[in-house]
Amino acid sequence: MQPTDTKFITRWSDAQPIRTEDELVVEEPLEIRVRQQSLIVVMRTPGHDFELAAGFLYTESLIASSDDIEIIAYCEESDADVEVPGGSSLQNIVNVQLREALNLDAQSGWQRNFHANASCGLCGKMTIESVRQQVSPVKSGFHLNQAVLYRLNDQLRKAQSVFEKTGGLHAAGLFNAEGELLIVREDIGRHNAVDKVIGQALLSDLVPLDQHVLMVSGRASFEIVQKALFARIPIVVAVSAASTLAVDLAEEGNLTLIGFMRGRSMAVYSCPERIHRES
Amino acid sequence: MQPTDTKFITRWSDAQPIRTEDELVVEEPLEIRVRQQSLIVVMRTPGHDFELAAGFLYTESLIASSDDIEIIAYCEESDADVEVPGGSSLQNIVNVQLREALNLDAQSGWQRNFHANASCGLCGKMTIESVRQQVSPVKSGFHLNQAVLYRLNDQLRKAQSVFEKTGGLHAAGLFNAEGELLIVREDIGRHNAVDKVIGQALLSDLVPLDQHVLMVSGRASFEIVQKALFARIPIVVAVSAASTLAVDLAEEGNLTLIGFMRGRSMAVYSCPERIHRES
Repeated sequence: MQPTDTKFITRWSDAQPIRTEDELVVEEPLEIRVRQQSLIVVMRTPGHDFELAAGFLYTESLIASSDDIEIIAYCEESDADVEVPGGSSLQNIVNVQLREALNLDAQSGWQRNFHANASCGLCGKMTIESVRQQVSPVKSGFHLNQAVLYRLNDQLRKAQSVFEKTGGLHAAGLFNAEGELLIVREDIGRHNAVDKVIGQALLSDLVPLDQHVLMVSGRASFEIVQKALFARIPIVVAVSAASTLAVDLAEEGNLTLIGFMRGRSMAVYSCPERIHRES
Repeated sequence: MQPTDTKFITRWSDAQPIRTEDELVVEEPLEIRVRQQSLIVVMRTPGHDFELAAGFLYTESLIASSDDIEIIAYCEESDADVEVPGGSSLQNIVNVQLREALNLDAQSGWQRNFHANASCGLCGKMTIESVRQQVSPVKSGFHLNQAVLYRLNDQLRKAQSVFEKTGGLHAAGLFNAEGELLIVREDIGRHNAVDKVIGQALLSDLVPLDQHVLMVSGRASFEIVQKALFARIPIVVAVSAASTLAVDLAEEGNLTLIGFMRGRSMAVYSCPERIHRES
């Protein structure tokens, strides 16, 4: 499946409406199965699905390293315990085989995460507290010169290939200390773009990412900061605003959270000491 | 709880960084319980929580009308079966009491929706097909003059009170055939803003909304169209792009889906016959 698809639309303006082809971003569900058991369905843009699955499991603390993963593969027809109409949607199911020794059910993370994402009964304070208990604060002495930060936005935009065509995607990018863009992913879902980036880093043995910066094209929510914390990322930069809960979690996790990164200005919500001014 | 809160941030630019107060959008989890059973937790901006709960139940087809709801109320301490640290988070749990006669478990919608949203094992085609089976196409002969459509965006922006302060919110607005803005809601979650609008309409006995237009400030995804279809809304307008799956569902549901509504131009993805040109 491709990340974009062509559809006929009507372009409407004061002049005569015109029937024309347009490039749209593809949205399809992806079901992640662990040991043949359905874990979650996310609406995503097809592509880098194995990285999405790996990143999701890692940032939800269901696995601790890439060693925990034995195989990631699309569902084969013989695996499917449901009737799948049309062959292509088998590409909407990813099976993850984990190491024999790993007992997911015994991990405290399993229950918490299934709740936090798949939506059962935890109130806010409890969620924050259970994350705080699980994730120790980022200790990384990593810091960046402000000039490096100012360059990230342009690089991320230039790397957004699909956005140019469809205008419908969120991007996430991972940068190193020199401000080089190492990984960029686009997706209709903000969280998916982050999971794909971190999943790629995990599968390339780059984690923990304690010398890296994560940048997202939109806003910084609680869940984005949560995912960054699990990957030990010390600095998260968003183009738009941060929420109160994102800032609370960033402060507790000793993570530098930056928003409204535009040109040569930004809003630093937490831990500004990691940003150094030019001497 | 308020929709915004004040935090100290560091405004950083080439000049000396300044420690200052800033207004942030509040993000808090809301747990929706039906008959004391946890149904879902959504991350939302506090405010209009009962409308959010009502709208969610309605647009997920768990209830058919406002008559199905007996009481919506915040959790009281004596109800809580979990330890809630800090009194304020009781405002993060909403209990919905439904009419005695209603048997949720017997509704085909229950299972489907719990799966589609709370994330278990359905592949794409199946989700679309089950929605298509449940929702008959919108039959409304409703139509709008293009001049009315061109005015919606400005009205929605002007009504966005919190966005101005924080830049961190999505908006959804419900308009009538004359292009008057009837209801506007802002939320950190796109789906929540739509649920709050439709929930308010439901509780005011405005549904079905077959003579109305829904406008959203961001993109049009599958789930936005799905919610509009359940409320029988014939026209959905988005400021940004639509996804492939949103267009597919709009076509199947005979719903007019419009994107990139900017100034006097727009992209009409489906059912353009509901838009009339000025004579």
